[in-house]
Amino acid sequence: MRTQVAIIGAGPAGLLLSHLLAQGGVDSVVLETRSEEYVAARIRAGILEHSSVELLESAGLGARLRAEGDEHRGIYLQWPGERHHLDFVNLTGRSVWVYGQTEVQKDLIAARRAGGQEIHYEVGDVVLHDVSTDRPHVTFTDKSGQAVRLDAAVIAGCDGSFGPSRAAVPAAKTFEKVYPYSWFGILADVAPSTDELIYAWHPDGFALHSMRSATVSRLYLQVPNGTDPASWSDDQIWDALATRLGHGQNGWKLTPGKITDRSVLPMRSYVQTPMRHGNLFLAGDAAHIVPPTGAKGLNLAIADVALLSKALVARFREHDARLADAYSDAAQRRVWRCTHFSWWMTTMLHTSGDPFDAELQLSQLRWVASSEAGATGLAENYAGLPINY
Amino acid sequence: MRTQVAIIGAGPAGLLLSHLLAQGGVDSVVLETRSEEYVAARIRAGILEHSSVELLESAGLGARLRAEGDEHRGIYLQWPGERHHLDFVNLTGRSVWVYGQTEVQKDLIAARRAGGQEIHYEVGDVVLHDVSTDRPHVTFTDKSGQAVRLDAAVIAGCDGSFGPSRAAVPAAKTFEKVYPYSWFGILADVAPSTDELIYAWHPDGFALHSMRSATVSRLYLQVPNGTDPASWSDDQIWDALATRLGHGQNGWKLTPGKITDRSVLPMRSYVQTPMRHGNLFLAGDAAHIVPPTGAKGLNLAIADVALLSKALVARFREHDARLADAYSDAAQRRVWRCTHFSWWMTTMLHTSGDPFDAELQLSQLRWVASSEAGATGLAENYAGLPINY
Repeated sequence: MRTQVAIIGAGPAGLLLSHLLAQGGVDSVVLETRSEEYVAARIRAGILEHSSVELLESAGLGARLRAEGDEHRGIYLQWPGERHHLDFVNLTGRSVWVYGQTEVQKDLIAARRAGGQEIHYEVGDVVLHDVSTDRPHVTFTDKSGQAVRLDAAVIAGCDGSFGPSRAAVPAAKTFEKVYPYSWFGILADVAPSTDELIYAWHPDGFALHSMRSATVSRLYLQVPNGTDPASWSDDQIWDALATRLGHGQNGWKLTPGKITDRSVLPMRSYVQTPMRHGNLFLAGDAAHIVPPTGAKGLNLAIADVALLSKALVARFREHDARLADAYSDAAQRRVWRCTHFSWWMTTMLHTSGDPFDAELQLSQLRWVASSEAGATGLAENYAGLPINY
Repeated sequence: MRTQVAIIGAGPAGLLLSHLLAQGGVDSVVLETRSEEYVAARIRAGILEHSSVELLESAGLGARLRAEGDEHRGIYLQWPGERHHLDFVNLTGRSVWVYGQTEVQKDLIAARRAGGQEIHYEVGDVVLHDVSTDRPHVTFTDKSGQAVRLDAAVIAGCDGSFGPSRAAVPAAKTFEKVYPYSWFGILADVAPSTDELIYAWHPDGFALHSMRSATVSRLYLQVPNGTDPASWSDDQIWDALATRLGHGQNGWKLTPGKITDRSVLPMRSYVQTPMRHGNLFLAGDAAHIVPPTGAKGLNLAIADVALLSKALVARFREHDARLADAYSDAAQRRVWRCTHFSWWMTTMLHTSGDPFDAELQLSQLRWVASSEAGATGLAENYAGLPINY
């Protein structure tokens, strides 16, 4: 089997890359170890930044997003006794959209199906070969158990932090930070108790009120690492959320509802560099992981793919390798900006147990909420920098 | 002996307080354990923020500052290969002044002498009594060894972190962070190699090029805690400064000169709250210590004294205790803002040895230097917030 770009991974990064390559006249084949149902259903991020929305729209993927997604002007930042709205549109002219990664994935699957994209789900034994030569190839076993060899000019590793691609970059430098807390996330069948996300600092720990739709709420609690999600009763979860989110303060009420999903998410920052080795290019979680506090993971994957698709189209259609050669450095600038921002939001909002840290956090939150420069700094990072940052 | 306000400590906080009280018609007596020569000569901070200059000027202490001090529009922020100027005046309309604490101290001594202020130097055995009652008093032995009792309505503790005042607040809450590095500071008889301060991030550690006058430079190197200042030769010091400050990059040169003073300064953040107990009020280093990176120590002492002098004048002259009652909370807001800013500048610029931290620092520095919001955030904190922040 032969193609121009072998894409490993059919998550948002891999499918968007195949979509943008097809629009640019470059062929690809996508390999995915999971089933289509699994990748279409898994619950992930829910916030699209300004540049991500623009990119999806210009790629013809914006119709359902605009119809069913929800544009937010900003977020609420709060600590006991105070809640402040940061209006990103006023501060930076940019908004964000609430539209679940699950929905982006469905739109991408539909678009790739309409485009006749070759996608192999439920493959096994994926191995990358000779990526530093001009004859790279991938071997795998297909759904029926048959051994297959896929030859390509380029391999795109969009297979996340557990896939084989990132290990195929020899002597890569890696940077990692593991945080001493996790997020306990729930989905609940209840209308959100807020019009925009609430990021809440509380002595008991961070809480976030997010949402997926007019009838589905998504909420998170900071918990110790290793917390068993089954160890909390529904009442304990709602009580902790009510306390940390300030139920009863200034007349605000948190409405509980039926919890339909619960999970505990460990938090880490991870960056691997370079993001290219010979004819292997990494994009998205294969090269970097951010803690979810800044809502950057999906957006960073989209930004990587925007750069990479342009670079590969230039290379295949115009025989111009300059963008491909510049890809890793260009992507890394944004990766580190978002890695820093995600670390900053995380360490500002999560309690460490140290009273000095708590006072620093409160002083910083007060400054961010009261200084135009402070608020704009958060807003421009959250609503997102230009793709070519 | 009797006065309205017994001021413990004849550093800038104590002398400025006695000066502002005298201008408001309130009597004070100042006690100091050191000699006048010692307090007039000790080398400390050198940057006055906008509000500090305004306050000194409005108190009639601005003449020599304006004549001999040096107004700076901003600072340089650099890392290997890049130097960026942050223009505080363009960003915030506020400048800073280079005018050593030693000079402020001399101006204050001259002003208090002209005002006939009673100052007792070289006192010993200072003990605060009955501060929570309406008959507080201080006992001490004067220069000649004679035991003295000073009765006052109010005691102002301006005696720094080693003085007896802060221990006289029972059950105070304290917050502390000790940093894992120190500053190796030198004074050199050489014209500064820069027109404004250079804050340099470097893999070897932070360096700062500051100055005291057109002929005296003040430079600092990040060194491990416990470094013996005698263990570095002059050449080693200048070589390290040249490397970290980028000698030879883009034609810039560091000119070495005769080193006239060298010392190693440990770095810590410390806050004690409340800053008032009964009729004892704390101001300056007696209540808080910041690492020197943000140039906030002297400015914070001046801001405390500005609030405290107003509060005490209102109390004695108008029998209005509201400002005195509000003093601790009002001062603490600024204290925590400056404590956070000083921690932020310090942790952004000093290497920790962790490669992930280094990349976060570089990403943050690039953002601060390239984003107007980022630059303005640094500028408004560095050039200083209003006294009544």
